[in-house]
Amino acid sequence: MSPKHNEEKISPLAPESFPPMPDIAGVALAAGACGLKKSSDSDLMVVELAPDTTAAGVFTRSLTASAPVQWSRKALRGGGQARGLIVNSGGANVFTGAKGMQAVERTVEAVADQFFCCPSKIFAASTGVIGKPLAFDKIIGALPRLKADLAPGAWQAAAKAMMTTDTFPKGATRTADIGGLDVTLNGIAKGSGMIAPDMATMLAFVFTDAALPADVLQTLLAEAVEKSFHRITVDSDTSTSDTVLLFATGQGGDHRPITGAEDGGLDDFRAKLAGLMVDLAQQVVRDGEGATKFITVTVGGAETDHAAKRIAFSIANSPLVKTAVAGEDANWGRIVMAVGKAGETIDPERLEIAIGGVPVAKAGGAVPGYDEAPVAEHMKGQEVNISVNAGTSGGGQATVWTCDLTHGYIDINADYRS
Amino acid sequence: MSPKHNEEKISPLAPESFPPMPDIAGVALAAGACGLKKSSDSDLMVVELAPDTTAAGVFTRSLTASAPVQWSRKALRGGGQARGLIVNSGGANVFTGAKGMQAVERTVEAVADQFFCCPSKIFAASTGVIGKPLAFDKIIGALPRLKADLAPGAWQAAAKAMMTTDTFPKGATRTADIGGLDVTLNGIAKGSGMIAPDMATMLAFVFTDAALPADVLQTLLAEAVEKSFHRITVDSDTSTSDTVLLFATGQGGDHRPITGAEDGGLDDFRAKLAGLMVDLAQQVVRDGEGATKFITVTVGGAETDHAAKRIAFSIANSPLVKTAVAGEDANWGRIVMAVGKAGETIDPERLEIAIGGVPVAKAGGAVPGYDEAPVAEHMKGQEVNISVNAGTSGGGQATVWTCDLTHGYIDINADYRS
Repeated sequence: MSPKHNEEKISPLAPESFPPMPDIAGVALAAGACGLKKSSDSDLMVVELAPDTTAAGVFTRSLTASAPVQWSRKALRGGGQARGLIVNSGGANVFTGAKGMQAVERTVEAVADQFFCCPSKIFAASTGVIGKPLAFDKIIGALPRLKADLAPGAWQAAAKAMMTTDTFPKGATRTADIGGLDVTLNGIAKGSGMIAPDMATMLAFVFTDAALPADVLQTLLAEAVEKSFHRITVDSDTSTSDTVLLFATGQGGDHRPITGAEDGGLDDFRAKLAGLMVDLAQQVVRDGEGATKFITVTVGGAETDHAAKRIAFSIANSPLVKTAVAGEDANWGRIVMAVGKAGETIDPERLEIAIGGVPVAKAGGAVPGYDEAPVAEHMKGQEVNISVNAGTSGGGQATVWTCDLTHGYIDINADYRS
Repeated sequence: MSPKHNEEKISPLAPESFPPMPDIAGVALAAGACGLKKSSDSDLMVVELAPDTTAAGVFTRSLTASAPVQWSRKALRGGGQARGLIVNSGGANVFTGAKGMQAVERTVEAVADQFFCCPSKIFAASTGVIGKPLAFDKIIGALPRLKADLAPGAWQAAAKAMMTTDTFPKGATRTADIGGLDVTLNGIAKGSGMIAPDMATMLAFVFTDAALPADVLQTLLAEAVEKSFHRITVDSDTSTSDTVLLFATGQGGDHRPITGAEDGGLDDFRAKLAGLMVDLAQQVVRDGEGATKFITVTVGGAETDHAAKRIAFSIANSPLVKTAVAGEDANWGRIVMAVGKAGETIDPERLEIAIGGVPVAKAGGAVPGYDEAPVAEHMKGQEVNISVNAGTSGGGQATVWTCDLTHGYIDINADYRS
């Protein structure tokens, strides 16, 4: 992969440190280097989950999805039971034909042997170069050593083993109340392009000690993904390998049984899960390739929430908006352009644009004599807020997050030779 | 605007020179500087068209279209008659409210006064910064001088007056046969992002001395745009000002009357018009902001032509594919990613990818032992060809053109301050 980028420097938008993560009953992790990366960086992580752990998953919509994505989809259809997870960097196992699926099968069989379970309870994910056969023998060879290292506290090591062009490991934790009992949620993620397929990919794994049926878990996960990972973009490219999995061990103590996703006892859990996943998603954007600014785009006054999201992404994906932010240029004309090309109904006469909370355009033109100084000051900061009111009478709204487009992105993606 | 970019250097992908353009009976042009640009570069061009000239137009689909786009759409609905065209750079007249439309109206009224016709026969287009009121008094003040300068040979001067971040003026000419009589087609265009709204925009104007009814002209233009300007992308951004107009003066001699677009006597004209517009469209890509490579993406084996076009644009718009080409990296994994995210049906097992005519991936994986040397050599050239067979039994195919994504693009769009 591209270790020089990892070594060069940590993203200026990174959190100060990896958060302290509590143990989660029923979860043990291990990570190490098995030789998939040219560097000696760690590239493999294994998680053992307590028997009766339930699972839910959301995957890339790409039609050229990786072999491990295809495997994990199938495993999930088997009833939503999980005993383990294996994740490697240093090879995405995409477009590797029948051999790619064999590599996943051999790998999960080996993990299942270690954990004395059937292979359909083992989930898998890979990230790295597309089209390169996965050296699964290296993974299998490292398994006994990793099994011996399994520990409940190895969150940061596990997050690090997934990194490719990521410049920092990503983790988040929350405590939620279910029927008067505290349960814990831990999540780890990787991703630094959205999503560079040969050097990055978005992976996120969330674990809780709550006891929740697989179908409830699936509903909660789908809702939370919609609010988090489906609201970010770095470069508008979609990975072949994007995978988000949620596991519930049921080992956190006896809260009252939950049988449906609409149970009011889940209110806090639902909110905390979404919060944790927004946290991880924002960390992915903060590690966006070449990013120097974190951009929040908020759209209101659209006909529907869906329309608002499409307008917000039209802004967030626009290379011209993203380069303007990189240049600290409050170029609202480019925002008008991006709103116009989204294809959603707007009222140009009532369209309003604010940057850093300062209205810069409304009523069909620039705000007469607006004070440019606070806007210019805002553009110089690391956090840039763009808000748009589309001017319709609909109440549609959405928030998405992205980063700027800089020379660093070109450095990483053009100056790199495979 | 950004004169430094113009002065810096001409795109390495530019044609050797502006082509020799014959006169077209019934067309006279003039260009000059009226002070809309901060530099003293020319920024205004006027065309006088013979009475009874017919007109057709295709405009941006943006919902925040410029005032001149709105005017020209309305003028076209008036019956497709044209007596003049006025085009300025140095200000796009977009998001300028009621004053923006007043500026267009005052301008076209002044042109109509010069040409003794009604304003609805005058077409208008503008390119430049969004949101800045158009100083139409400067335009009106310059009109008498430009009228005195009208000449049939001022094609290059007219093309230059439309330039913003363009590094070279764009023109093309063709001769076509209609029922045994030669007619001439001349076209001029501007554009260097697809399309930077504040420093660029795609404008193209085509003139012929053929005698064709407005409805026939409109059909021919729409067909030709679909094959040319709707097949290019630089950065996936859509201008608020894109305008393509086709004018037929009927002054080229008496060919037999054409009353319908399906008349077989139009076969050669139709082909030459499309060829001319593909030529202009490719020149726009060759002047793409920061471009160092011209990329042709050809997709076959898709379910429909529409599906093929969507797959081709998914590749041509991918920042990761475009940066890989900039880096001369034959990274076909990124092409697999872009095919996968297009959302169109493909057969991964039969998907084939070739670079520079050399198959690099098929049958679900890399082509075993393919010769990398000619592929690497091809990537070093200025013309890069990517072809994809989507592997379905449908015969859908499409070709689109784009350029690479380089530090030059970031320089132009981020390092520039408005």
